[in-house]
Amino acid sequence: MTDGENGSVYHIAIAVKNLEEAEKLYTKAVGLKVTHRETVEDQGVKAVMLKPESKEGTAIELLEPTNDNSPISKFIEKKGEGIHHICFYVDDLEASLKVLKDEGMRLIDEEPRIGADNMKVAFVHPKSFNGVLVELAEIKKD
Amino acid sequence: MTDGENGSVYHIAIAVKNLEEAEKLYTKAVGLKVTHRETVEDQGVKAVMLKPESKEGTAIELLEPTNDNSPISKFIEKKGEGIHHICFYVDDLEASLKVLKDEGMRLIDEEPRIGADNMKVAFVHPKSFNGVLVELAEIKKD
Repeated sequence: MTDGENGSVYHIAIAVKNLEEAEKLYTKAVGLKVTHRETVEDQGVKAVMLKPESKEGTAIELLEPTNDNSPISKFIEKKGEGIHHICFYVDDLEASLKVLKDEGMRLIDEEPRIGADNMKVAFVHPKSFNGVLVELAEIKKD
Repeated sequence: MTDGENGSVYHIAIAVKNLEEAEKLYTKAVGLKVTHRETVEDQGVKAVMLKPESKEGTAIELLEPTNDNSPISKFIEKKGEGIHHICFYVDDLEASLKVLKDEGMRLIDEEPRIGADNMKVAFVHPKSFNGVLVELAEIKKD
């Protein structure tokens, strides 16, 4: 079901204005294939995941805002299109959050919540990660 | 020698002020291990590559400038610490550059050059990639 291990990069999320054009670009320029499409209404975002031919390894996740209040709209307004966050797989999200908290790191989500593809996820503040917005996603066991 | 395939993400490069501290962070927070260290004098950069336990998949490449004229110094000065570029593996770099050029994309390197770890690499301008500085690296055959 998943090809991740603790610490491997699950996806790199990129905020884009036009999902269709960005999808064509990554398909043509680096040969990626679409593996998953999802609209997360409460986040105001349409997402497309792309991977290389083998469907293994790190995905590129393209995010287009569906409305002006979407965090992705605000990101693009402030910084322009670009990398929004990177997401690492972890074995045990609650244990990871405890380690980060004990290290004094700034968590956006103190507790796991349910993200895209029904995974348990939590975000860590870029101030604690050299300017990088980091998402942690618990590897699904099935 | 390499676990890459055409279109897979070889590394995510992050510009940091203090390599040692950043290395500790990624080791502690997501369990990564150092796989490679290199100083590229003509780029003014000290680099550390980190991967998960299995040493497979996408690497995190931490970049610290070695002098004030380093492109990494200038990046940090202008934007602060954060993701500098992402690097995709490609099978045939010259062929990829030709595709991008024919698509009217803006190349920083029109021809392959030799980058870290002696690989053939070329950079594509963020204007052509939704604000993301993209490096392409040719998979080594050996």
